[in-house]
Amino acid sequence: MLQTLTWTGSAVRMVEQTRLPLELVYVDITTPAQMWDAIRRLVVRGAPAIGIAAAFGVYLGIKDASAASFAAQLHKTCDYLATSRPTAVNLFWAIDRIRKLALDEEARLRTCSTSVRPPRGSAPSADLCETAMAQLKSRILSECLLMIDQDNAVCRAIGELGADLLAGHHPGKDVCHVLTHCNAGGLATAQFGTALAPIYVAAERGMNLHVFVDETRPLLQGSRITAFELMQNHIPCTLICDNMAATIMAQNKITAVIVGTDRVAANGDVANKIGTLPLAIVARHFGVPFYVAAPTSSIDPALASGDLIPIEQRADAEITEAFGRRTAPASVPCFNPAFDVTPRNLITAMITEDGVIHH
Amino acid sequence: MLQTLTWTGSAVRMVEQTRLPLELVYVDITTPAQMWDAIRRLVVRGAPAIGIAAAFGVYLGIKDASAASFAAQLHKTCDYLATSRPTAVNLFWAIDRIRKLALDEEARLRTCSTSVRPPRGSAPSADLCETAMAQLKSRILSECLLMIDQDNAVCRAIGELGADLLAGHHPGKDVCHVLTHCNAGGLATAQFGTALAPIYVAAERGMNLHVFVDETRPLLQGSRITAFELMQNHIPCTLICDNMAATIMAQNKITAVIVGTDRVAANGDVANKIGTLPLAIVARHFGVPFYVAAPTSSIDPALASGDLIPIEQRADAEITEAFGRRTAPASVPCFNPAFDVTPRNLITAMITEDGVIHH
Repeated sequence: MLQTLTWTGSAVRMVEQTRLPLELVYVDITTPAQMWDAIRRLVVRGAPAIGIAAAFGVYLGIKDASAASFAAQLHKTCDYLATSRPTAVNLFWAIDRIRKLALDEEARLRTCSTSVRPPRGSAPSADLCETAMAQLKSRILSECLLMIDQDNAVCRAIGELGADLLAGHHPGKDVCHVLTHCNAGGLATAQFGTALAPIYVAAERGMNLHVFVDETRPLLQGSRITAFELMQNHIPCTLICDNMAATIMAQNKITAVIVGTDRVAANGDVANKIGTLPLAIVARHFGVPFYVAAPTSSIDPALASGDLIPIEQRADAEITEAFGRRTAPASVPCFNPAFDVTPRNLITAMITEDGVIHH
Repeated sequence: MLQTLTWTGSAVRMVEQTRLPLELVYVDITTPAQMWDAIRRLVVRGAPAIGIAAAFGVYLGIKDASAASFAAQLHKTCDYLATSRPTAVNLFWAIDRIRKLALDEEARLRTCSTSVRPPRGSAPSADLCETAMAQLKSRILSECLLMIDQDNAVCRAIGELGADLLAGHHPGKDVCHVLTHCNAGGLATAQFGTALAPIYVAAERGMNLHVFVDETRPLLQGSRITAFELMQNHIPCTLICDNMAATIMAQNKITAVIVGTDRVAANGDVANKIGTLPLAIVARHFGVPFYVAAPTSSIDPALASGDLIPIEQRADAEITEAFGRRTAPASVPCFNPAFDVTPRNLITAMITEDGVIHH
């Protein structure tokens, strides 16, 4: 499977997802500004991948910091990267994880350092020595790398639980049709995906699978990324426009819908790519199970309900001229929310790495 | 308002709708083959407009026919034009109307002619004289022109009835938000539109209106045509992707959804542009009235229910490379039905020129 994001030793190498599916190219990111831009422009996208990318972005912001400037540089980078996109909670979760680790680690190292080194009578050094700084930076990089491994473990666990659900709905040997929206596949995580993980695991187990892929207007993450990824991984798929899913469900073809999420509120409401809410309503109408694959890092207990989730509004041009030529009248007003909120009562269950939460 | 289709005296002049919204250009159609191609490529589209265009296409096919070849030429042209698109019943309705009129008229003229002219003892002439042929062709052209006038009258009647419905739902002075899908506006008819007619009439009556326009994937009739048409007619509008309608309905913003139709089955099921069915399901979910503007010429009593309506499948490229560049992996399988079927029970009422049929 493709590696969405790896550490080369000096740069974060990421699949340039805006160039898919025509070209599979990688970009090397070496500064927080490049990472901010990559997140903003959706070079890297998908809540879990954004989180990991932002964590590495923080590391890029402090890796050359002096001991004196470390804390300032850390906060500046964290605050800056947090402005790249507003909806996916993983972004803030990952940045806070690295910030907290860095501050704790710096304090711990300073305690060790001051307890050993300052001569009696002199003021304790405010700054860490070079060795301690190297240790601190290395510890932060390790945490970023650990996040990749943890993401893989989380996705694998979601995949196993989700594959069990699919097997329960579809015990036969004939083709099991799953429908997904946007891309919560390998390219939305470090490698394996959340919503697509159950499909990959079910395929490993020998299930006869076929995926209907919503193209996902306006930015076509479904056609550009999910279809590409499924074909790379030899999972049969069919591309449809978002508004065709109802026709297929009306034909009783779909065993289950599985989507990802950018943020889950405390009450179980789910923000995900625009188009998820109507899909959930249509699935409910036709009695099709509707699952949300949600790593626990996407759960935001601080928000009571979905209407409190900040929804990113993006540029009109994504609707009016997304694909190389203008397709709407000049100056037509647009409404372009990147996400919608699906209430808990339309969700059959959330598949987390810790277990399936039936609603 | 724009004239979708006019007769210049020697050609059918039509708005070239595939060039909208960037250019407003007209094409002059002078042969049945050009008309077939124009219908097929959606140069002219919208069930009522297709019907009128096909009627003129039949006229173009017989206007230079000799008396001897008239009937053969008529049948050949009618049968040929009927293969241009499969779903809109108005196409067949209009072709059959002209065919029947032409045959009846030819028979009538032959009776007159044979009753007067053949000398005693000679066999009655099989062919009409030149004068009678001119009369016959002129009668057919008049019928085509009459269809434009009748279409205008039908659309106006639908507009008045629909505007009454809007006023009933929205008695206040604040903005009444209506949502529509695809284009069942003036450019889908001769001039005035079906689904947009209630909006134009309500605006004439001084109602404060705003229209949310579904862009309507894959061919973007909403952004290319409806937004263009509404802006031309000074109706405030906002363009959205199809999958954003649910978000707006969830905010209780929409007074009513009004769409057109390509064919209504005898039981009230409605075929319309792909994306209508999910919109109807979502409207029902949020308790938003869902209206179908349906001239009686769109009703097909020969089909018992919606599942019998033939649904046109169109080329994959409409999904994979509709906007000037390829946006999906090479050779990805696609499913591209041009229409879906909305069952009667999801439709609040049909607005016909003869009255509102509440379900």
